[in-house]
Amino acid sequence: MRRLLRVPGGQGVDLSSYDARATPAGPRDKAAGLAAIAQMVERLADLQERLWAASTAGDRRRVLLILQGMDTSGKGGTVKHVIGHFNPAGCRIRGFKAPTAEERAHSFLWRIRRALPEPGEIGIFDRSHYEDVLIARVRELAPHKEIAHRYGKINRFEKSLADDGVTVVKCFLHISYDQQRRRLLQRLDNPDKHWKFSPDDIDDRQLWPAYQKAYEIALERCSTPEAPWFLVPADRKWYRNWAISTLLLEHLETLAPQYPKADFDVAEARQRLLTET
Amino acid sequence: MRRLLRVPGGQGVDLSSYDARATPAGPRDKAAGLAAIAQMVERLADLQERLWAASTAGDRRRVLLILQGMDTSGKGGTVKHVIGHFNPAGCRIRGFKAPTAEERAHSFLWRIRRALPEPGEIGIFDRSHYEDVLIARVRELAPHKEIAHRYGKINRFEKSLADDGVTVVKCFLHISYDQQRRRLLQRLDNPDKHWKFSPDDIDDRQLWPAYQKAYEIALERCSTPEAPWFLVPADRKWYRNWAISTLLLEHLETLAPQYPKADFDVAEARQRLLTET
Repeated sequence: MRRLLRVPGGQGVDLSSYDARATPAGPRDKAAGLAAIAQMVERLADLQERLWAASTAGDRRRVLLILQGMDTSGKGGTVKHVIGHFNPAGCRIRGFKAPTAEERAHSFLWRIRRALPEPGEIGIFDRSHYEDVLIARVRELAPHKEIAHRYGKINRFEKSLADDGVTVVKCFLHISYDQQRRRLLQRLDNPDKHWKFSPDDIDDRQLWPAYQKAYEIALERCSTPEAPWFLVPADRKWYRNWAISTLLLEHLETLAPQYPKADFDVAEARQRLLTET
Repeated sequence: MRRLLRVPGGQGVDLSSYDARATPAGPRDKAAGLAAIAQMVERLADLQERLWAASTAGDRRRVLLILQGMDTSGKGGTVKHVIGHFNPAGCRIRGFKAPTAEERAHSFLWRIRRALPEPGEIGIFDRSHYEDVLIARVRELAPHKEIAHRYGKINRFEKSLADDGVTVVKCFLHISYDQQRRRLLQRLDNPDKHWKFSPDDIDDRQLWPAYQKAYEIALERCSTPEAPWFLVPADRKWYRNWAISTLLLEHLETLAPQYPKADFDVAEARQRLLTET
């Protein structure tokens, strides 16, 4: 799965060549996909507990899942349906919106560093520092030269994370222009979803090609050996959830965190408990 | 449920008079309890989404669940099994351990204020500022006079939270001395649980009466109209989970958060999407 969805770095990326409705290596249909996810839940939870347990004995390793994608691509849905299967106590979830005045006064990585997962945790970013080369590029929120420098800064930053034991899993949720329209219309059709909608979302669709271009550049320049990008076809929600669950499972299985061994005399402790007054 | 489990403030509290295996107002057995919890899950998730949605339109209300109890009383299990049913994106979970050097340099409420839920969120504290009148009292970590002043400080602090739209739900997970021994022995019997165990846990049992006394005082002095304490019998895990789910449901239903109404022309937006080029 990792190999299949991985974006080759340093080569031109053409998003239009990726079918957002595709289901590479996936179960044959939604029912099979949901069943496959259900089968992963226990292993994911077990690995998460092991990761956490290991951190109590000094293991500094952790995971950081970065979710990026156009509006309605399912970043929030991924948090709800994939991360919802983990123990919430071990998850550090952070959504990044337009930076505050305080955040703007610092380097674009400042607010990112403050939100990183601690050892043993699974961190989840709903948007991330990539906004600073996506919307920032499309809307020219920073000088061109400054943005050009950010790709290298991001790569060095992510390399430093990897060196510090952070497994970075970057997922681009790839949806089609038509699928976004359908999802926006669904929001309009349901009054309980109107709060998620803004007429600006329609205006933004004019910028779709510019955003796709910005994503292509980010994927090309920042898919590194230490922190590769995964391109997840996301028109089908069940596939998106299955693929991201699978990616997390594969990365956690590679980490293979172990429960720490007892550093005390188990038999003696049991005896004390059984004979206490 | 709120009335049943609520600790009357200002009156003497005798924990030994509460049966930790009791199931007040609860389902008749574990199977019925799990079924009842399953039935609540959807309503809880719906109310959480409404609370979050309302916050996007300026509603500042939020919930803060405070979990206190002896070791093995099930604070972590409550986060996993009760909070695990919520959307993790809207939960702000914080565990409080022995204060760091930086935290000790500030008032005992300093680290608490920094961990409060934002509007629309459900905050969960696994331990809290109550540690500063519990372990601090039992182990004399602060002068007696200082501790005596903390109850009033806590009440004023929690009153200020209530005034700011925070619904504070404080749960004392009440387990028996024998049940704690059984749970500690279970940890010893399972090598995957050894990391949760320390021989200090046995030593701490010598202080059980002193802790019970400290809890009695905290419950008596800090069960206020704005932030009452609920005493949750916790020897039976299914009952604990059912009772806390029910308490959260009742509080959320009282808040009755509403989805914001559209502040744009829905028909016009739909037309634009359907006719865009």
